Amino acid sequence: MASEIERVRHPRADGLRTRNAILLEAVSLATVDGLEGLSIGSLAKATGISKSGVYAHFGSKEELQLATVDVAGRIFEREVIAPALSCAPGLDQLLTVCDSFFEYLRRQIFPGGCFFAGAVLEMGSRPGPVKERVAEFQRLFIELLRQFAETAKQLGQLPSDEDVAMLTFELNGIILATDANFVMNNDPTILQVARRVVRRRLSVGDIRATDLL
Amino acid sequence: MASEIERVRHPRADGLRTRNAILLEAVSLATVDGLEGLSIGSLAKATGISKSGVYAHFGSKEELQLATVDVAGRIFEREVIAPALSCAPGLDQLLTVCDSFFEYLRRQIFPGGCFFAGAVLEMGSRPGPVKERVAEFQRLFIELLRQFAETAKQLGQLPSDEDVAMLTFELNGIILATDANFVMNNDPTILQVARRVVRRRLSVGDIRATDLL
Repeated sequence: MASEIERVRHPRADGLRTRNAILLEAVSLATVDGLEGLSIGSLAKATGISKSGVYAHFGSKEELQLATVDVAGRIFEREVIAPALSCAPGLDQLLTVCDSFFEYLRRQIFPGGCFFAGAVLEMGSRPGPVKERVAEFQRLFIELLRQFAETAKQLGQLPSDEDVAMLTFELNGIILATDANFVMNNDPTILQVARRVVRRRLSVGDIRATDLL
Repeated sequence: MASEIERVRHPRADGLRTRNAILLEAVSLATVDGLEGLSIGSLAKATGISKSGVYAHFGSKEELQLATVDVAGRIFEREVIAPALSCAPGLDQLLTVCDSFFEYLRRQIFPGGCFFAGAVLEMGSRPGPVKERVAEFQRLFIELLRQFAETAKQLGQLPSDEDVAMLTFELNGIILATDANFVMNNDPTILQVARRVVRRRLSVGDIRATDLL
């Protein structure tokens, strides 16, 4: 009975592992060649899996692109959003989501920087389900920044006349400018500048207790 | 004599016109398909010129890409930088360069938004002469913002403790966030928000005399 279950389970587990390996490579390749640049051929080459093996996992290019956006989203959530969600509500969350983004760039998880910064510009002029999925993630992230800022304001951690919508716009801008600068110049000092810009904007001193940990 | 000169001149003028028409289309296509997505074939199709006709103007893909970056730079200079340079030094230049950028997006000169915002992310992970040319333009634009801000500070139009490097970083970020938002959502109200964000950051009222012209 156990071996029968194993026989049923392992092929699925292997299949999932292969699918995940392909998608991780797809996210990475997309930061260089774009989501439109993804192909069964380039993924087969990058993963060492046969073309028919890659093809078996994705019925169409669109399906591959949608799955790639989903995996990129899960990685972003794990690397950038989760650390912030585990902080005290408000200002700490706002600082941590920015710092986690800069740290995510510093570790160069993908060769072309933030997947979503590139995907937004690439897919903006290509209406369809892939654009919608990317737009949904962009909205979700901006809404998260807005909620952190709104909480910080309600807790008195930001001035009572702070315009939360404008602050959100500016912080998203600092994040995008950091990505563009870092991708182009590959200079980690830009990440230190970005941290200081965020702290100046939020009127927080350069060093917090958690910075010393 | 005159006809001889004409005979010599016209082919050159025609050649230049054709070359410029191809490059204008190349900048536009690159905002959708990327600089790497440019091909002799897609340009021939878009311009109605034969493939051999397009090929005659550019010896290699790299030459085509470099010429495309140069033309995109000239358009950006004309649309965004020139209006600012004709203003009074300092704060007026800083406001006008931002407003001209938002106006340049509003007019949707290219289908994929700002050519350089996309090119920076695309070419960042592709070392070579094309990346260098894009990086040079990115540096030039950021340096221009910095000079406008420095002048504004020296003229007492900004607080004496304003950190010019950080302000430059933030303004470049507002510009990139506006592009990313507008490309994705194609909603002109984002451009009004962007104008207000810039004015708040520079402590300038919502309406200037020139806004009423």
